[in-house]
Amino acid sequence: MSLPDAFHDIAKRVNNWGRWGAADELGTLNLITDEVVREAAATVRTGRRIPLALPLTRDGVQTGMIPGRIDPLHVMVQINQELFGPGTVACSDDAVTMGLQAATHWDALPHVSHSGRLYNGRPAHSITPHDGAEFSGIDKVRHLVSRGVLLDVARARGTERLDGGHAVTPEDLDAAEELAGTRVRAGDIALVRTGQVQLCLAGDRHGYAYPSPGLSIRTPEWFHARDVAAVANDTLTFEVFPPEVEDLWLPVHALHLVEMGMPQGQNWDLEKLSTACGETGRYAFLLAATPEPFTGATGSPVAPVAVL
Amino acid sequence: MSLPDAFHDIAKRVNNWGRWGAADELGTLNLITDEVVREAAATVRTGRRIPLALPLTRDGVQTGMIPGRIDPLHVMVQINQELFGPGTVACSDDAVTMGLQAATHWDALPHVSHSGRLYNGRPAHSITPHDGAEFSGIDKVRHLVSRGVLLDVARARGTERLDGGHAVTPEDLDAAEELAGTRVRAGDIALVRTGQVQLCLAGDRHGYAYPSPGLSIRTPEWFHARDVAAVANDTLTFEVFPPEVEDLWLPVHALHLVEMGMPQGQNWDLEKLSTACGETGRYAFLLAATPEPFTGATGSPVAPVAVL
Amino acid sequence: MSLPDAFHDIAKRVNNWGRWGAADELGTLNLITDEVVREAAATVRTGRRIPLALPLTRDGVQTGMIPGRIDPLHVMVQINQELFGPGTVACSDDAVTMGLQAATHWDALPHVSHSGRLYNGRPAHSITPHDGAEFSGIDKVRHLVSRGVLLDVARARGTERLDGGHAVTPEDLDAAEELAGTRVRAGDIALVRTGQVQLCLAGDRHGYAYPSPGLSIRTPEWFHARDVAAVANDTLTFEVFPPEVEDLWLPVHALHLVEMGMPQGQNWDLEKLSTACGETGRYAFLLAATPEPFTGATGSPVAPVAVL
Amino acid sequence: MSLPDAFHDIAKRVNNWGRWGAADELGTLNLITDEVVREAAATVRTGRRIPLALPLTRDGVQTGMIPGRIDPLHVMVQINQELFGPGTVACSDDAVTMGLQAATHWDALPHVSHSGRLYNGRPAHSITPHDGAEFSGIDKVRHLVSRGVLLDVARARGTERLDGGHAVTPEDLDAAEELAGTRVRAGDIALVRTGQVQLCLAGDRHGYAYPSPGLSIRTPEWFHARDVAAVANDTLTFEVFPPEVEDLWLPVHALHLVEMGMPQGQNWDLEKLSTACGETGRYAFLLAATPEPFTGATGSPVAPVAVL
Repeated sequence: MSLPDAFHDIAKRVNNWGRWGAADELGTLNLITDEVVREAAATVRTGRRIPLALPLTRDGVQTGMIPGRIDPLHVMVQINQELFGPGTVACSDDAVTMGLQAATHWDALPHVSHSGRLYNGRPAHSITPHDGAEFSGIDKVRHLVSRGVLLDVARARGTERLDGGHAVTPEDLDAAEELAGTRVRAGDIALVRTGQVQLCLAGDRHGYAYPSPGLSIRTPEWFHARDVAAVANDTLTFEVFPPEVEDLWLPVHALHLVEMGMPQGQNWDLEKLSTACGETGRYAFLLAATPEPFTGATGSPVAPVAVL
Repeated sequence: MSLPDAFHDIAKRVNNWGRWGAADELGTLNLITDEVVREAAATVRTGRRIPLALPLTRDGVQTGMIPGRIDPLHVMVQINQELFGPGTVACSDDAVTMGLQAATHWDALPHVSHSGRLYNGRPAHSITPHDGAEFSGIDKVRHLVSRGVLLDVARARGTERLDGGHAVTPEDLDAAEELAGTRVRAGDIALVRTGQVQLCLAGDRHGYAYPSPGLSIRTPEWFHARDVAAVANDTLTFEVFPPEVEDLWLPVHALHLVEMGMPQGQNWDLEKLSTACGETGRYAFLLAATPEPFTGATGSPVAPVAVL
Repeated sequence: MSLPDAFHDIAKRVNNWGRWGAADELGTLNLITDEVVREAAATVRTGRRIPLALPLTRDGVQTGMIPGRIDPLHVMVQINQELFGPGTVACSDDAVTMGLQAATHWDALPHVSHSGRLYNGRPAHSITPHDGAEFSGIDKVRHLVSRGVLLDVARARGTERLDGGHAVTPEDLDAAEELAGTRVRAGDIALVRTGQVQLCLAGDRHGYAYPSPGLSIRTPEWFHARDVAAVANDTLTFEVFPPEVEDLWLPVHALHLVEMGMPQGQNWDLEKLSTACGETGRYAFLLAATPEPFTGATGSPVAPVAVL
Repeated sequence: MSLPDAFHDIAKRVNNWGRWGAADELGTLNLITDEVVREAAATVRTGRRIPLALPLTRDGVQTGMIPGRIDPLHVMVQINQELFGPGTVACSDDAVTMGLQAATHWDALPHVSHSGRLYNGRPAHSITPHDGAEFSGIDKVRHLVSRGVLLDVARARGTERLDGGHAVTPEDLDAAEELAGTRVRAGDIALVRTGQVQLCLAGDRHGYAYPSPGLSIRTPEWFHARDVAAVANDTLTFEVFPPEVEDLWLPVHALHLVEMGMPQGQNWDLEKLSTACGETGRYAFLLAATPEPFTGATGSPVAPVAVL
């Protein structure tokens, strides 16, 4: 089995290999220039901050279907331990075990490969058990602050939540961009709201996982045309699931991460942000969403904050 | 054994219990108002971003002396796994086990207790193995973005790195504030540079750990007078170690976290930031440093970014 | 709410506190004398060995209902790593994170408490986050080798598998003992077969978990009369689940672990052993089932082996 | 660089590939027949049991030099949690994260490879991050009970502890065998005592690690001639360290695991066993040392028990 021609046609049109040099490991994050960040800071009007991460708990979003992607197991290593003798200041310490892609997270570029290749043509076998990803690991993203734009597809379509299985199309993105009142531009981080995370917040993990609305295989070209730096949304699978084309699994992952070199965010809670943007009519903001610098990792939890 | 009168005298002067109500769990983070954040965004001049986190690696800053505070053990759960059959898009996933206070991190308020009490008079026993901290867990900090000010004590004292055992005094902070050319004000996050992290960056973990320069027991009053929201520095122990007063261990932790309700940051890499501030003569910036929202945790790794 | 009189009546009759001294931490394991082990070795006829542990895999017996009891997450830390240079001998290493009670395991005595007490009257609060169980931790069991006797209740009742919810009674144990052709005696380890593990082996984790046959609240007196050293069976919950008496949860755990000081084994695979015993008509054997010596732990995985 | 001729010469002489068929995954464990086990059971005289495992603690044998081989991090997930409401039976649960080769353990055959090959000619690349070892994983060892023989080299040489760097030779093994008063035979498990573990028990982890006495490259032929099933000793490195031949690292590992297909045990505490054998003059016993069945793992902790 191999990937169909339809995939390869799109791949050619969105491919960014070599665009920032043969040695590049950052992909579309190169589009976040100092100027972009200056303008992002200038979008701040009220100073209000809205967090976009789901809580990191044992009872998280995972259903157990992806065995290694375990919800955070947070444990207390010591509680009120008087390390220096009775009556001294007492310390409490914790530890955690978790899948790096288990909760609100960024996919690093090497999170997927296809045809033996990673972004910029690096060989898939450059990921090793001992060192993780040699190229484009999440640690290479040293900072991730830019202008964020909420593309509220659910609202633009006049619904609270897209149906499970709805494929978000370029036309949906056009409508959401029009609602946002600002053109998405180079270096922006696009946050695509489907409303699906409401199921997760209501405790229905299985309904949240499947079936899920998400990005259509046609959207990478839209993001490529706008030259966005990254895209995140409020679903577990990111792209529509089950997939649009039979037996073509995770094509959007492959186009974004491998062909374009564009990081993806999943399990972002965009509900409060949607309310705030709806109230003010402003859908652009400063977004601070730097991943934790795990050396060689193919993803990282993130606690994104929108500053309005 | 109990804490000495000298401690209790300072504790009375800096105590914030009840200041934001009996139910408050945020302490000095209440000082970060929308207005403070608006002004923080307005400090951005160039858009340059400087990351302040150390890499999260197996070979991290811990020496093994604090047994549960293990360096991040990053492992690959799958590598280029063709989940949907041969020739399909392949996925790589990772997991991690780590002490939440092992690397660049924030201490949440319940990280220490003294005399059976946590911030705002909560009982120390409200921390439990199953649920962690009932009050003021790191998850209660939903966002942490404010104006940051670098207090470059090493530079103000004309040295690259303070001596091990040097206690940073209020006078040192005055000098660093003068060098910074801006008065530290309510809601700011103060970053105190000692230069000690150079030892860690050079691979000398033991020298980094001990002896260490750090904050004197006299500095909490300085931070209290300025009403800063949080303080971070570039050491493992935060306060001077070994301590200034014999058998008085971690007094600054107790004053900041328990009495003032002020979060502390440790193991921050302030070297590149120092260079940048020195070049521009500007020591204030927008600081994005939101912790990961581990429910009930007494600390969290953080990937802080200064936007200049 | 408190435990009913019916519980306390049985508790008095089976209580072993003080029987082996006020300082004792081993409970009924004291009954395994050198003589018992000599006789156990003498039961070996063929030298055939039958393993009784379920595989330790990510896809184990847990359903996710008990959040911290995670299935083993086995990961490769390095694969064929040529540590000493190209062309040298290459090493592969692994690590694991798991709940100690997640798979085939022993409950240590402090695994449960009631009314604030552990076995031998120790206070429940002697278990701490930093050190675990101060008394009777699984590490105190340095060896666990004795005569094992299979009490094949399913076979004695003429069925392959007891119904979910069937409470195994003293009369069931009598019948199984008669089938075994040997009287259960002091220091023996009784293995009670219900056949329930067949559901787990067939991949039906939820059916395995609930409803489950298991020991009735009336059986601790039977084990106490025989003075067995330990009891294990082939279920997740050990005792019948849901419980026989409304709102009386885990009474057998409390009677065995707290009152009698008798370790319990769960998730043991007794199917092949049952076949072998059925073929030979011999139901007694040498049983080697030493837990891993985790300091202060309230349980441990175990890989029991019957030698026939 | 490649392995020297001296290595390949020995390799040819001890190679067992194909001896038990092309599909074999057990290697020398095939030598433990029912008859061997029957005779092993018959060695039991007193019924005394001696545990051979080191405690599993955070403060274990590792020095941090092998980053992923972390000492057991044992944590309490819940303590006296009244799961079913106030006043009900309360539960305590634990979890652990550890390197499988961190403490007293067995190396499975795929723990090392050389020249791209594992035992029986399997390709080294058959070990994968997701599934671990496809062939000869520790889970394939379903039971490990046999006759154990203590080869007390330290005592045979009239010392309490061999010098760091002493290479145990075939002549040393001959002398220890003579002291044991029994000829080592097919299917036996040989326990080679150097006394080195005394350093570990005294808290000197670094001294324990290096320099270490251990097996010489000449001993695999001795074990091959006797057809032992497995060998364990009381050191961290198993073989003499630093190595006897410059730049020839871990040759004994490669000969035992890859060429012979013989499991190795490390960090076994043989001190009490040595005392007991010295007192009785009997050095053979029943040994129960079944590893935990981690699917696809290249090693496992073990809690071995000698029954005398």
